[in-house]
Amino acid sequence: MQKFKVTFFPDNLSVTVEQDKTILSAAISAGVYINSSCGGDGICGRCKVVVKQGRVNSQPNGIITAQERKNNVYLACLTTIHSDLDVFVPDSSRINFDKLTPEELEERLSGLYSKSEDVLPAQENFEDKFFKHSPFATKIYLELPEPTLNDSVSDLERLYRALRNFGEFPAIETGLFNIRQLGELLRDYAWKVTVTLGRRNDAVEIVLIEPGDTTGTNFGLCFDIGTTTISGQLVNLNSKKILGTKATYNQQAAFGSDVITRIVYAAKTDGLEKLHNAVSDTMNQIIKDLVSECQVDLNNVNCIVCSGNTTMIHLFLNMDPSHIRRQPYVPTANFIPVLRASEAGININPRGLLSCVPGVSSYVGGDITAGILSSRIYQKEAPCILIDIGTNGEIVLGNRDFLVACAASAGPAFEGSGVTSGMRASSGAIQKVSINKDDFAVKYSTIQDKLPKGICGSGYIDLLSEMLKVGIIDKAGKIKAEGRRIRTTDTGKEFVVCFKEDIRSQADIVINEADIENLKRSKGAIYSACAILVKHLDLEFSAVHTIFIAGGFGTYLDIEKAINIGLLPDLPHSKFIFIGNSSLAGSREVLLSNQAKTMADSLALKITYFELSVNPEYMEEYSQALFFPHTDLTKFPTVKF
Amino acid sequence: MQKFKVTFFPDNLSVTVEQDKTILSAAISAGVYINSSCGGDGICGRCKVVVKQGRVNSQPNGIITAQERKNNVYLACLTTIHSDLDVFVPDSSRINFDKLTPEELEERLSGLYSKSEDVLPAQENFEDKFFKHSPFATKIYLELPEPTLNDSVSDLERLYRALRNFGEFPAIETGLFNIRQLGELLRDYAWKVTVTLGRRNDAVEIVLIEPGDTTGTNFGLCFDIGTTTISGQLVNLNSKKILGTKATYNQQAAFGSDVITRIVYAAKTDGLEKLHNAVSDTMNQIIKDLVSECQVDLNNVNCIVCSGNTTMIHLFLNMDPSHIRRQPYVPTANFIPVLRASEAGININPRGLLSCVPGVSSYVGGDITAGILSSRIYQKEAPCILIDIGTNGEIVLGNRDFLVACAASAGPAFEGSGVTSGMRASSGAIQKVSINKDDFAVKYSTIQDKLPKGICGSGYIDLLSEMLKVGIIDKAGKIKAEGRRIRTTDTGKEFVVCFKEDIRSQADIVINEADIENLKRSKGAIYSACAILVKHLDLEFSAVHTIFIAGGFGTYLDIEKAINIGLLPDLPHSKFIFIGNSSLAGSREVLLSNQAKTMADSLALKITYFELSVNPEYMEEYSQALFFPHTDLTKFPTVKF
Repeated sequence: MQKFKVTFFPDNLSVTVEQDKTILSAAISAGVYINSSCGGDGICGRCKVVVKQGRVNSQPNGIITAQERKNNVYLACLTTIHSDLDVFVPDSSRINFDKLTPEELEERLSGLYSKSEDVLPAQENFEDKFFKHSPFATKIYLELPEPTLNDSVSDLERLYRALRNFGEFPAIETGLFNIRQLGELLRDYAWKVTVTLGRRNDAVEIVLIEPGDTTGTNFGLCFDIGTTTISGQLVNLNSKKILGTKATYNQQAAFGSDVITRIVYAAKTDGLEKLHNAVSDTMNQIIKDLVSECQVDLNNVNCIVCSGNTTMIHLFLNMDPSHIRRQPYVPTANFIPVLRASEAGININPRGLLSCVPGVSSYVGGDITAGILSSRIYQKEAPCILIDIGTNGEIVLGNRDFLVACAASAGPAFEGSGVTSGMRASSGAIQKVSINKDDFAVKYSTIQDKLPKGICGSGYIDLLSEMLKVGIIDKAGKIKAEGRRIRTTDTGKEFVVCFKEDIRSQADIVINEADIENLKRSKGAIYSACAILVKHLDLEFSAVHTIFIAGGFGTYLDIEKAINIGLLPDLPHSKFIFIGNSSLAGSREVLLSNQAKTMADSLALKITYFELSVNPEYMEEYSQALFFPHTDLTKFPTVKF
Repeated sequence: MQKFKVTFFPDNLSVTVEQDKTILSAAISAGVYINSSCGGDGICGRCKVVVKQGRVNSQPNGIITAQERKNNVYLACLTTIHSDLDVFVPDSSRINFDKLTPEELEERLSGLYSKSEDVLPAQENFEDKFFKHSPFATKIYLELPEPTLNDSVSDLERLYRALRNFGEFPAIETGLFNIRQLGELLRDYAWKVTVTLGRRNDAVEIVLIEPGDTTGTNFGLCFDIGTTTISGQLVNLNSKKILGTKATYNQQAAFGSDVITRIVYAAKTDGLEKLHNAVSDTMNQIIKDLVSECQVDLNNVNCIVCSGNTTMIHLFLNMDPSHIRRQPYVPTANFIPVLRASEAGININPRGLLSCVPGVSSYVGGDITAGILSSRIYQKEAPCILIDIGTNGEIVLGNRDFLVACAASAGPAFEGSGVTSGMRASSGAIQKVSINKDDFAVKYSTIQDKLPKGICGSGYIDLLSEMLKVGIIDKAGKIKAEGRRIRTTDTGKEFVVCFKEDIRSQADIVINEADIENLKRSKGAIYSACAILVKHLDLEFSAVHTIFIAGGFGTYLDIEKAINIGLLPDLPHSKFIFIGNSSLAGSREVLLSNQAKTMADSLALKITYFELSVNPEYMEEYSQALFFPHTDLTKFPTVKF
């Protein structure tokens, strides 16, 4: 098999690959992150590159325009390599792996930490009210009595004996590593040592034995492993104080934007390994930044708790996720035993432990269990709903007596993916829109007030609501109006939100009928999932006490406009509470309290999974929801247009 | 530092070492096993080598004769290297690592397997009468129901659910290794798998998951790790059948013949690692031979149970043993958690488990716990004694109510070490002796009727008893008689057992006054340890129901003659039972039954360790025992000379 050298510009990174490999695959090997939302199926059109030199072979597709063809623009995923190549990757085809700015972070982590402080307990004492402080890893300082002829039990038994003075332990485990160094350690340090205990399933493990008193330095990490964003916090396990929070894009995005495309990618040669490395690399970078900024020694980070959807946890642990997407949708494991973090490639103390918040099913993962835990809906008397609008949309309905969860294939449209001008809720994203009813002039605000680069989820909700209000689109989502901003292209009608001249850009920011269709399906999936759960339990929406909204939207989401387009049920605004990243909050609770861990385990067992795909009523609900706001307007009495 | 090349002959093995290293250390590096009973202290005189070429520097010592000096004979341990060397290692200075012959094996393993069958239960059903069959590793074949939309629990939970049908498990653990392969394995093999469960402390671990029904092939190993000899058995865990038994010398012998010299050696650079490698190499060779002869796939050997004295277990597990020999004699651990065999360098199934029978103290190890277990003295109504005459002599006195154990520094004289013509009980060893009272002519028999090479333990017992009877030595052990066979050398008087002309050898086989002193101390140490235990519990020897004799002596030992020299108490011969390698038998019971494991754990906790070295009465008992048979002849009424 002939091999060719492919060089990517402007990075100037080269890689040698076999003939017939795609440019996308070469880019992945070279460490150049090309956007590939659809996972390399030639559908999303995000991976356009310019072949500056060399011979390629490309499959026909409708995404590359004639003009682009003339300029040697190709879809990296459908184009194979037939000579040495020079390839230029434009910014618009790249995944931005910049760390989130503090402002972006605040937005993403808002909810539990900001607006809802009056509703949910304040951050500092968050756990105290519910769960006893008993962190995943605990340090105990021991001064052992020196052995004598009358008290000559072995070093290990002496240690166990002293530990048992601190409480009842079901079973204490120790590895050979610790035993091997014990004799010298005890004698060199005058029988004064600090033992780090970790909860390991039903036992307690001696994770570390250190000389002297090191109880003052005991740190842990909690992570939310999201399909799009990975967020981590460094926590002082003694004081329960959050020392730092970081979030960044999941590098797996290079292999597809949703869980299904990643599962498909995992089945390719080395695919699973690459996906695993992408997530552990991302986490290790966050960890490195956190310990460096907080001046914490990585050796004093003794444990980590992660929550994420079931696919993310499988990929993180290098577990084959392929059966998640095949009927009957069975994951390899929902409950992952406590592991050493190093087994998952995570760089903390080499003996540090890793726990994953247990999931419920293939499409209701540990992130939802963590969300239920931190939102406390499992304690409420009246039924509540938890909606996590991420790349998947998970919905939970329940109270202290029951918990039912389902997953709606919402698609990534509200995450800014799969829509023409979509982008994530980061700097320069249009987040608020209003449209003049006479001339359709658009007013907007962007995140951090930068020049607009695209539209994020909350921006689309505003945009759709406004377009409905001023009559640009009808209830079916078709563009009916005419004017300077409305035009017809090869692919149908589109509305120009920003002209490129006004925003110093190379392209207009637009929304076309296909985008609207996409967004309509997303909102319809989420609403109808809520509706079917409520119906399934013989309830009405009016009986729902609170709707907790978790996920990336954060405080940007305009409840009224979300109701206007039929994304959220038509309920008083006071019933909606933003709880931000409830998955991260839940994993932090598990990190800080064994009781929370036990509760998470029992919640994951208690939650009933409701499979929408096989429910005939769901399809009916869903098709009724494919209108703005709904075919049945009596369900949206406050929506007046 | 200058370096020199040292070549050993006739092996023709070379090694490059730094100036000032000893020839012994160079030999160890080169893989040439030179005898070094004293561990390199220049005392035992076993490491004589001939320097054929090159310059050396040797410390003065009284062991090398003037004639030897002329012939360039040096003690390898006291001689340093000052140029390139050619060194000849005579056979007499080598350690014989040959495997034991089947006959030697039978002798060593006799007791439980032969003579005592009428006293102790027969081998095949040995465990059944006492312990339920519940091996360390158990295989369970499972046919899982295929998942459906209505039964979509994860693969791992499906497996657990099926397992729980087979019994109550306290906690089931699984490693990531098994989880990672689970999804594919279940689907590729139609949901039919065999799970190997291992007992891991208080939990049950899924060691392996294999496709199809492999329950028919489940094997385990038990080992006795002796200071001198290592014995192993391959056992069919289903049928409880012993498939094969192998024993060989512990390669650690190259580093010293008793535990103290090995502990000292372990403190040298790389010493611990070399000792660890020596024992694991020895065991791996036994395992390789066993599986090859029995045609068992090493991958189907799923667990191993080891017993050995506390030092042996420390060295085996690469644990620093240095504190064992320092007051207050504290080992690092008596109870070793269940490990993966690979952690100790043992080659069985890579995920196979390793358990060590727990010890009591630094000088009463798991081999004694195993001996108590297999001898059943913990069940007896009347007090019994267990004597394990190995390199150390351990004594246990007890019954179902109490168990007291002590260790007597017997020294290796009865193992054939530290005495002029001593050798192990192997081919060519004089095992039986009688002496004509008139002309002191010696009649003897050797093991396997070979030409005599030396005298083993039972031979020395016979020899001493006969020398006493015919008046060659007095009760103090001094040679009083005169004659052709009695002569005086530089080091005192000696009695010639065999003249070299008669046995086609280069040296006479002799016993000198220093040897007799050595043997007297050994027998005195063992007898007085028994006596002090009996006294400690306000008993008389007459109250002892049975004396179980374990260890290398096997069936060679002549009870009457052992009483004559005062090694064993003067009790009716019917009270003595040889139980052979009771350590191996005990470890096999632990391998085959969880109940036996639990019993071993509780025995190790129940046994009271009696420290002789700090007991003033012991020194008195000991000095009284430094006569043949004893200063107090009323204690040996049947001994008539």
